[in-house]
Amino acid sequence: MTLEALVFDAYGTLFDVHAVIARCETFWPGRGAALSQLWRARQLEYSWQRSLMDRYAPFSAVTRDALDYACEALGLPLDETRARVLMDEYLNLAAYPDVPAALERLQRSGKKLAILTNGSPDMIEPLVKNRGMEKLFDAVLSVDAAWIYKPAPRVYTLAVDRLGVAAGAIGFVSANCWDALGAKSFGFRVFWINRAGAPVDRLGFQPDGILRTLGDLPGML
Amino acid sequence: MTLEALVFDAYGTLFDVHAVIARCETFWPGRGAALSQLWRARQLEYSWQRSLMDRYAPFSAVTRDALDYACEALGLPLDETRARVLMDEYLNLAAYPDVPAALERLQRSGKKLAILTNGSPDMIEPLVKNRGMEKLFDAVLSVDAAWIYKPAPRVYTLAVDRLGVAAGAIGFVSANCWDALGAKSFGFRVFWINRAGAPVDRLGFQPDGILRTLGDLPGML
Repeated sequence: MTLEALVFDAYGTLFDVHAVIARCETFWPGRGAALSQLWRARQLEYSWQRSLMDRYAPFSAVTRDALDYACEALGLPLDETRARVLMDEYLNLAAYPDVPAALERLQRSGKKLAILTNGSPDMIEPLVKNRGMEKLFDAVLSVDAAWIYKPAPRVYTLAVDRLGVAAGAIGFVSANCWDALGAKSFGFRVFWINRAGAPVDRLGFQPDGILRTLGDLPGML
Repeated sequence: MTLEALVFDAYGTLFDVHAVIARCETFWPGRGAALSQLWRARQLEYSWQRSLMDRYAPFSAVTRDALDYACEALGLPLDETRARVLMDEYLNLAAYPDVPAALERLQRSGKKLAILTNGSPDMIEPLVKNRGMEKLFDAVLSVDAAWIYKPAPRVYTLAVDRLGVAAGAIGFVSANCWDALGAKSFGFRVFWINRAGAPVDRLGFQPDGILRTLGDLPGML
């Protein structure tokens, strides 16, 4: 089936969540990488656990909770000012270097482009705007409309419903392998961006394509 | 409300999952701790992700998948023989030193005792038997009967249904904070065993009690 739309994960796929390391370093020299790693790990774990508990909270709240946990676990004193500065980093994450040119090329191909993200609207909308990417996307979709996180099928359904495109005609792109495989389980054609050379996650599915950078995608369609 | 039953998580709570490190070391000297850590992390992540994907697979399969992933990610060659030896370690995990005496003391208090575990019957039943603990428990319950993993409410419901005890009269004990808080969200009275001195996870709930070892529990009831 010809792909009519391409749907992209945001954090870790288009935008580098570990771009927060530099800011963490200014507060706690030498601890930025450890903090960023634990922060991101707990952010995702809380998203899965809250989903299974039927206790959805928006990703901005989950992200702040994970920051609080990570700082306490690492013994890094966090006050309101620092917390606000670090949370604001999420509104200004850098795009990966390969992303802007690849998106522009894909847009010229005439397919619909959309974001489908765990990020709540208060996080993702300012980020897309701050990066000057509003005109690249036909839709910016948040799991917040489904009150559950990836990789629940209800999340991927949002793209089908909002874009008006059948699942089999949607290409889904994520650098989070478990997200790509959740989308595959749902019925999308999926492309995993494997920037780090990691193994494929063992979740009973395989990606349809594995890319090193988003720049590889136009040539694979 | 007086507690009529005590329900225990198994892995990480009664049994030390990192007891596999020594066996890993015999295969890959110097890499045992890293392998054990990544193996356990992916085991849990796959349990959450598969639950959200509606793609339940038994914990024995998830554990083997996580082992395959972890070995590949760390560049450790895994053949069928080594895989079988490592998987068999799960049938012989050591109990934490504080566990046997505390369980015997709790049993003498007259409350029903049960295990409620992610482990599939093919994993947990041999383990309990090999550790000589069958007579301590009135029931050994597996999420396998619910086809979803912790912390989904359907899992905790198993204990209510099988023990015939109301949620509010069940004390739930776990060293996995997210599991304790999932049980709290469900309606149990929960005790978190915080052996490592970690912060409380930020999931919108607090444990009713925090223990350093299981030996602290009898004195708190």
